[in-house]
Amino acid sequence: MRKSSWVFSSVALAAVCSAALLVGTSAGAASDDQALLDKAKSLFKPLPESPALENTALTPERVALGKALFYETRVSSDGRQGCVSCHNPAYYGADSLPLSLGIFGKVLPRNAHTVFNTSLLMAQHYGGNRATVEEQAVKALTSPVAYGNTSFEQVEKKLATLGYQPWFDKAFPGEAKALSVENWGKAIGAFERTLLTPAPFDRYLKGDTKALSAQAKQGLKTFIETGCAGCHNGVTVGGQSYQKFGITQDYWLVTGSTEKEAFKGYDKGRFQDTKNEADAFMFKVPQLRNVAMTPPYFHDGTAATLPQAVRIMAQLQLGKQLSDTQVADIVSFLESLTGEVPADFAKAPSLPVASH
Amino acid sequence: MRKSSWVFSSVALAAVCSAALLVGTSAGAASDDQALLDKAKSLFKPLPESPALENTALTPERVALGKALFYETRVSSDGRQGCVSCHNPAYYGADSLPLSLGIFGKVLPRNAHTVFNTSLLMAQHYGGNRATVEEQAVKALTSPVAYGNTSFEQVEKKLATLGYQPWFDKAFPGEAKALSVENWGKAIGAFERTLLTPAPFDRYLKGDTKALSAQAKQGLKTFIETGCAGCHNGVTVGGQSYQKFGITQDYWLVTGSTEKEAFKGYDKGRFQDTKNEADAFMFKVPQLRNVAMTPPYFHDGTAATLPQAVRIMAQLQLGKQLSDTQVADIVSFLESLTGEVPADFAKAPSLPVASH
Repeated sequence: MRKSSWVFSSVALAAVCSAALLVGTSAGAASDDQALLDKAKSLFKPLPESPALENTALTPERVALGKALFYETRVSSDGRQGCVSCHNPAYYGADSLPLSLGIFGKVLPRNAHTVFNTSLLMAQHYGGNRATVEEQAVKALTSPVAYGNTSFEQVEKKLATLGYQPWFDKAFPGEAKALSVENWGKAIGAFERTLLTPAPFDRYLKGDTKALSAQAKQGLKTFIETGCAGCHNGVTVGGQSYQKFGITQDYWLVTGSTEKEAFKGYDKGRFQDTKNEADAFMFKVPQLRNVAMTPPYFHDGTAATLPQAVRIMAQLQLGKQLSDTQVADIVSFLESLTGEVPADFAKAPSLPVASH
Repeated sequence: MRKSSWVFSSVALAAVCSAALLVGTSAGAASDDQALLDKAKSLFKPLPESPALENTALTPERVALGKALFYETRVSSDGRQGCVSCHNPAYYGADSLPLSLGIFGKVLPRNAHTVFNTSLLMAQHYGGNRATVEEQAVKALTSPVAYGNTSFEQVEKKLATLGYQPWFDKAFPGEAKALSVENWGKAIGAFERTLLTPAPFDRYLKGDTKALSAQAKQGLKTFIETGCAGCHNGVTVGGQSYQKFGITQDYWLVTGSTEKEAFKGYDKGRFQDTKNEADAFMFKVPQLRNVAMTPPYFHDGTAATLPQAVRIMAQLQLGKQLSDTQVADIVSFLESLTGEVPADFAKAPSLPVASH
């Protein structure tokens, strides 16, 4: 925690200083434009051209297996739950629900993030309790709410029965035990690492100042000046640090969040896993790529619309009341973070059929 | 009932007579081939070149709306149930489950049929209690297990809130109340009517005798001679008549079906709706197109594999014990009924987002 807090604070300080500089600029529109671009370049990064690797090779066979497993629901205990259930291409890699639903309609404790670009985040889940996409994919298998399996052996048996042995053999050539839960994680991780969604904002960061509308640029300026970029920065415009949710007051007073049995009260973020009081109400700052396409918002989905979420965040985190114009401008900027749903992701695979 | 029974009987009689003729043929392989093709042509029909219409126009706007609504889950009471839930492109338009799951994990009473080619059947559902795909789509909305809505008005409000008004206006131009549950049915029906899956067997029926392997042709011959084609005939190789399931003995003695609370005992098919004893254990004969890709089988999914289903059907319906070779040949023929998953169906749409 200490380390990420420090990172947050120094970035926030830089943002505030630069905001002051921006406001002070009195040159013409063109140089304003250049100053904003320079400022943006110092806070954000365009998406990489190719996926980041993590102890794996993104061979076509591995990505194809990962895609099949991502869509595979027969491994779950009710036969209907897969990665795709909460990370649905029709909803930009999320599920449109305040709280996700797991096996047999069980309610999951938090809102689902989009799977797009998530491999680039510092950790997975709102609590950051999964280091990588691979770990997340593996641990979901025996979660009593997500997939509901009782053991990894059970999962491996199911995969073999479904006919996945040749798929794993091709994706992990030469491995004595190619079909394994570890390789389930590696394959799904490989697929998820390909799910990057370049957006108009990336073209802007690369120098094309026409990629953003005048309103989006005004929104970017407001986003920086207000202090949003203190946490929502970097390649994924967030997702790189933890932050307390509810700095100026308890979050539920503003969001309308309710106490939850799973948390024996209000959701205290990372504390739920670490039981360390310093982690109370600390959540991973969500990435904002594709945010306009993935309502509802917050860890418990209490904000139905983006303007509402922007307004609440400024109030709760920065103690600022934004005007309608400021909110509309910021929303316009956030819309420039919307990329295309990756075509290969949107097209469901035909899964192996064991009808014989 | 009487009418369909008569249709069944006369077709069955014709099949038996022709089977006798086929067995009696002693000419060369080529003329055998021609005789089999001629026989097949008299029993089956290739898929039509274009979708069948039913009181609707399949405009691109209507089909696109229908596709969006097919994938739309936010209209259901748990926010996760859509047509696509039971008719999933990853499972050839079915769901791979013995019994489907509805809202909040509720178990539906019967196995889901594939949505492919279903618009060509004489009626929908195992009980035939939905005349058309349009009616099925509408009635699912207020089913307490499927979508769980309490009224059509509630559905229309949800659709308006989700931003579908302009979609309906485009799809049903000039209509005073374009956004309506009736048009929900028409749009989804329009989309489903496009989901036809031509297969090698269609090329065969059109005269390309090489479209089927020697084993598949032997299987077709066995399929006809055994009497399967008595019910499984026509353009959809079934789906055009009702038939008692379990002619030689009670079906559950062979299938392992269990009594179900929903049916206060064993599932009695059409009787459950009509309460007419003549309908007891009468089920719609399922179509066999894509059957190799849509296990498990029977109205309650009790047959896990296709060879098992073929063997049980011959025993239960025709009092015949098939040899392993006969089963393998029939399965080979049934595989020739597998078409491609329609590409447009497999690609999830991006649904309207009301984030503002």
